[in-house]
Amino acid sequence: MLQEFNIILVETSHPGNIGAVARAMKNMQLSQLRLVNPKLFPHADATARAAGAEDVLRGARVFATLPEAIADCHIVFGASARDRTISWPAMTARQCAEAYVGCLSPGERVALVFGRENSGLKNHELDACHYLLRIPCNPEFSSLNLAAAVQVVCYELFVAGGFQAESAVGDRGEEPLANAEQMEAFYRHLLETIADIGFLHPERSRTLMRRLRRIFNRIHLDTKEVDILRGIFRFAQDHNLKS
Amino acid sequence: MLQEFNIILVETSHPGNIGAVARAMKNMQLSQLRLVNPKLFPHADATARAAGAEDVLRGARVFATLPEAIADCHIVFGASARDRTISWPAMTARQCAEAYVGCLSPGERVALVFGRENSGLKNHELDACHYLLRIPCNPEFSSLNLAAAVQVVCYELFVAGGFQAESAVGDRGEEPLANAEQMEAFYRHLLETIADIGFLHPERSRTLMRRLRRIFNRIHLDTKEVDILRGIFRFAQDHNLKS
Repeated sequence: MLQEFNIILVETSHPGNIGAVARAMKNMQLSQLRLVNPKLFPHADATARAAGAEDVLRGARVFATLPEAIADCHIVFGASARDRTISWPAMTARQCAEAYVGCLSPGERVALVFGRENSGLKNHELDACHYLLRIPCNPEFSSLNLAAAVQVVCYELFVAGGFQAESAVGDRGEEPLANAEQMEAFYRHLLETIADIGFLHPERSRTLMRRLRRIFNRIHLDTKEVDILRGIFRFAQDHNLKS
Repeated sequence: MLQEFNIILVETSHPGNIGAVARAMKNMQLSQLRLVNPKLFPHADATARAAGAEDVLRGARVFATLPEAIADCHIVFGASARDRTISWPAMTARQCAEAYVGCLSPGERVALVFGRENSGLKNHELDACHYLLRIPCNPEFSSLNLAAAVQVVCYELFVAGGFQAESAVGDRGEEPLANAEQMEAFYRHLLETIADIGFLHPERSRTLMRRLRRIFNRIHLDTKEVDILRGIFRFAQDHNLKS
């Protein structure tokens, strides 16, 4: 149960927090932990704070970068306490749990990404996320301890497992969702295409691509749809080459 | 807000946990902390783990016994992970929050009592409680860290207070959604563009447009996003005209 939900910690500084996260996960029947470039791991502090969840620590997979850690995941949430300049589509922990627990097709995986203890996730990391994951809290004191944030999210997933919720994505087809790796290839192709047709001004490309990601990340394209759109890109590119 | 809800910690061993509890409380706008016979308090570890919630620590009241600590409270919950021989009336954290937040008469106070890190509350202490307070969790690994348990309970109180954030669709930027007329203009422009770049085979245009509508209808584009995408279409069209 809840095997499809992966907790991903980015550049955690204190190994004790990794152990506390493992404990919080196991308390709520999650087991899939991924670590991106942890400062110290494995470490005695992690084992001590795991307090019986050493199996989760032993099973943790370590990655060098976030894109590698989420490559096989289909729906990616980035936990964020701060307000961002560009407004990203957001879901609360409860909405996320009610939308996805019990509603995934076989083989579909969800990534729940948590940033550094002091500074959270960087904007370029959030670009890889489909939704901000929000934990409702005191706007004047909104920085939760890392393990506390994971605890609340895992708790909501566990509680949602107690009943079958409606799917937020709704009426989906039979095609499998594109995973993060396929979506990155899609975005590279999109960027190439808009450069080829002359639309891209280099100085505004970053903002533009962020806006385009914001659009396409929230559609959850399936693999067939990615094929269709990339087919259109190829025609736009070819015509440009001929011109 | 949530001033009527008192977190009461009984014989906490590690002062760091008291600090982490203070932080968890302030994250959810609780401030009333009571300590029954803490082993070490005040303590530098408590202050360090409070991480900005020192005001909650400073305001904490220390009592020698549980009956003194709950004397002025009207409704008393005792957190318990273990199954008890005597079956006690129990509520989950969510039921407790939904039953009491915003539903208390002026002057009524609720006590939420949490036991020792290793052994929880003793039966004679539970005798002083009206309800067991349950946090749904893995029956095979049910011992939450003290601060994690307090975090989940305070989170439920906060959410019940009406702070559940807007829905994913609601929590958007400032731009208004495109209306149906604007979306039809968008689809006409998209159809024109894919015809201009030579992608469209007349015999399959109906199926293709249906697929493209299925993609874009489910994103709820705002007017700014429609402008951006149509700007890209115009570049693809212009290049085609030049070719």
